[in-house]
Amino acid sequence: MLPFSTLLPINKESAMPVYQQIANGLVGLIREGVIKPGAALPGSREMALLLQVHRKTIIAAYQELFTQDWIETIPRKGVIVSQRLPEIKPRTFKAAAKIPAYAGNTGFTFNKIGAYPATAGRSGEHRLVINDGFPDHRIGPIDLLMREYRSLFHSPGIKRYATYGNMAGPVSLRNELTQFLTETRGLNIGPNNVLLTHGAQMAIYVAARLILKPGSTVLVGQPNYFMADMIFQQFGAKLVRIPLDENGLDIDAIARICKQKKPDLLYIIPHHHHPTTVTLSAERRMKLLELIRQYQLPVIEDDYDYDFHYSGSPILPLASADHDGNVIYIGSLTKTLATFIRAGYMVAPENFITEAALMRRMIDIRGDNLLDEALALLFKNGDMQRHLKKSVKLYHERRDHLCTLLQQELPDIVTFQRPAGGMAVWAQFHKKYPLPAIAARASAKGLFMSDGSAYSYGTVNHNALRMGFASLNEKELSEVVEILKKVV
Amino acid sequence: MLPFSTLLPINKESAMPVYQQIANGLVGLIREGVIKPGAALPGSREMALLLQVHRKTIIAAYQELFTQDWIETIPRKGVIVSQRLPEIKPRTFKAAAKIPAYAGNTGFTFNKIGAYPATAGRSGEHRLVINDGFPDHRIGPIDLLMREYRSLFHSPGIKRYATYGNMAGPVSLRNELTQFLTETRGLNIGPNNVLLTHGAQMAIYVAARLILKPGSTVLVGQPNYFMADMIFQQFGAKLVRIPLDENGLDIDAIARICKQKKPDLLYIIPHHHHPTTVTLSAERRMKLLELIRQYQLPVIEDDYDYDFHYSGSPILPLASADHDGNVIYIGSLTKTLATFIRAGYMVAPENFITEAALMRRMIDIRGDNLLDEALALLFKNGDMQRHLKKSVKLYHERRDHLCTLLQQELPDIVTFQRPAGGMAVWAQFHKKYPLPAIAARASAKGLFMSDGSAYSYGTVNHNALRMGFASLNEKELSEVVEILKKVV
Repeated sequence: MLPFSTLLPINKESAMPVYQQIANGLVGLIREGVIKPGAALPGSREMALLLQVHRKTIIAAYQELFTQDWIETIPRKGVIVSQRLPEIKPRTFKAAAKIPAYAGNTGFTFNKIGAYPATAGRSGEHRLVINDGFPDHRIGPIDLLMREYRSLFHSPGIKRYATYGNMAGPVSLRNELTQFLTETRGLNIGPNNVLLTHGAQMAIYVAARLILKPGSTVLVGQPNYFMADMIFQQFGAKLVRIPLDENGLDIDAIARICKQKKPDLLYIIPHHHHPTTVTLSAERRMKLLELIRQYQLPVIEDDYDYDFHYSGSPILPLASADHDGNVIYIGSLTKTLATFIRAGYMVAPENFITEAALMRRMIDIRGDNLLDEALALLFKNGDMQRHLKKSVKLYHERRDHLCTLLQQELPDIVTFQRPAGGMAVWAQFHKKYPLPAIAARASAKGLFMSDGSAYSYGTVNHNALRMGFASLNEKELSEVVEILKKVV
Repeated sequence: MLPFSTLLPINKESAMPVYQQIANGLVGLIREGVIKPGAALPGSREMALLLQVHRKTIIAAYQELFTQDWIETIPRKGVIVSQRLPEIKPRTFKAAAKIPAYAGNTGFTFNKIGAYPATAGRSGEHRLVINDGFPDHRIGPIDLLMREYRSLFHSPGIKRYATYGNMAGPVSLRNELTQFLTETRGLNIGPNNVLLTHGAQMAIYVAARLILKPGSTVLVGQPNYFMADMIFQQFGAKLVRIPLDENGLDIDAIARICKQKKPDLLYIIPHHHHPTTVTLSAERRMKLLELIRQYQLPVIEDDYDYDFHYSGSPILPLASADHDGNVIYIGSLTKTLATFIRAGYMVAPENFITEAALMRRMIDIRGDNLLDEALALLFKNGDMQRHLKKSVKLYHERRDHLCTLLQQELPDIVTFQRPAGGMAVWAQFHKKYPLPAIAARASAKGLFMSDGSAYSYGTVNHNALRMGFASLNEKELSEVVEILKKVV
């Protein structure tokens, strides 16, 4: 008799029912070869005594194993481990040795994606995390969203949502976004101008795929959102870096380049630029619009956190002005709700959206239709608008709190401009305090932070990082600065 | 006084609270310019009388509008529409005329994705849908999945799931998949061999991106899964079509090609091939494995519905044999659960997974981490395994039911081989009955079905379609065949 009481430890505190723990434990023993096919198991009465549980629990466990074909009942012999485990199981069972291990390396050579800056890495174990500028999922209407999702799933409409849908995404959410973007950004569009994507990143990828060819020239900021840089480079495009100051990209520099040879694309983040958080001034915006019309210059306008603006009036996106159909506008709902709700969108002329939908479909068939329908309901019922209003107020306070702390506690160490919006402060550390060393010391104290290398991708070493303030409350922000003060 | 009782219709049957209907209605009137900024609104008492609702309802509606800055309260004057609507609102308000309409066409030229076969189109309005082979979401553990999702969201772990994760996807789900694939397919792998994707389609896209260059040669079936063909073509690859019979791809044809010049990729669906449902025989599988080793031939093995096998023993995937690291294995959880749960995976040598994770990240940063964690729990608790067992039994019955009906009711019209597994029957219609005409007539009778054109993409006109049986119960399948009988 095997020592079942030792082999099958039971945790009565666990969320998993005891019978299931026993069943899983037995499957493990069979798999590992501890119990062989054909071996008899103790009767339910005996096993109940051995494991000190009710007999019904053992009967339930055996029933489970029986259903899964791991055991069988032989008349007058009792319960035995199946001689003929289901076709697919013996293979594992018989021969870990016979099944060849998957090769560690491919037998063929393939395209490499290229150097990739170290980003956050393993932040899971830290008590506090300074992220790149994530929203605070704790204040978002996630419970409401789940409720809508659930009731849609149980509604008659599920039949429709679960089959084919419109290639550009559910019409309901495209309609709601059309109205939302009209109200908040003055975009004069219809639902056929909107493509839903699995996050803003996918929208950038798809737009770049349609616009670029190997050898294309793309104008980007110095520095720029590094994940956009990488997209353009992997399509074989050449990056031309445009200087940037507190008023955004240097539009005169773009004009000079256009005069010589029209570039194939300008990628711009006019509001709360990533990583530097600067906003393109109204004057430069006008100048740029003129250039766009004069040269018919294709533009990707990445406006991922337009909705989060705290100081002064927000400036309208390029897309809301007259641009002769040259501006592809990209936004995010992930930034509005939570990192784990992946939803973004692209606004473009209809001929572009048609092709972009084909491309998006090739990458992942369709989005999470049911989630998109649930998101549409959040807009329709005003929950999203109410959440935005609430979170803008809260993030405004958090921005001010962090800026005050940085000024008071780290005045000679950190330089920054108070951002007019967004979810992060671009914090440049004095060169006497190299970020990799600070990040390592902070990590030891339970604070995860970037070492700044990703933000310097392809440009100079800024010794700076984005300090996301939106997802941390004031107490947490105080703790963060406290730790920083100790480790510099 | 405006005729508010007419302008603000109230639907007491609606799920939307009445106060919200009134608030939304008023926003609409303000937006349309019917009510001008500065205009006074009736007091709550008066408005309640006008609309025949309780005064508290009006107070709630006004509170809502007040919160959204649409109205303000002026002492001794009452409620008026805000003179200074929030910065972003007046733009819409002032001038639909002034905001330029988004151009219908781009000002620049761009890459076209190319011809795209008409697929399902608008199937939403039909009572019955023959899909391509979708699972039945009605029997899946979607409620369980939602419960796990919800409790994870409210657990302390959410902090971790909501920040950065492993680039290849949460370790929990990769661990569970490792174990599941070992048990069900005899794959000898570790979690570092697994990349999670937003559906199997994304895994094909990413693998092709790494393997192909413009001018590469890809061997595919005649016919083949058309969405894979399109991926390869848009990477500039040349398709070489390999004949196919009831035992799968013609491996001798592949051998002849390899002898002349090694192709850059073989794409194969060995089990229940798409669209024809044939399964590669054990003998051909051995031959192909020899070729793979001999030529170090890169292979994408798309095994999207291996788990659904009804007749005889399933044949192991190529990936579970010795292939010197040349087989990239792709599977789907979407097919296990529901079309709106987008989850797939890639299994490959670690050096390939590393680059594939970079590529996947470039396309959409990360998956739905929380959903992945919830899926991991379904595996861990055995819910997924139980669901698979249940659905295999049910789909088996549905396959038999449909095959019997087709034989009995449409013997001279439809030809097919009973598929050994999967979720669809490959139904070839006699050439006297062209599918486009049948599909049009069926549509008029409330049955949506493919006109077959997508399945003929790049090959001959098969006048055939995949009849998905998994998502329809026996009564529904009978209705489908009933309608088909009427319209042929």
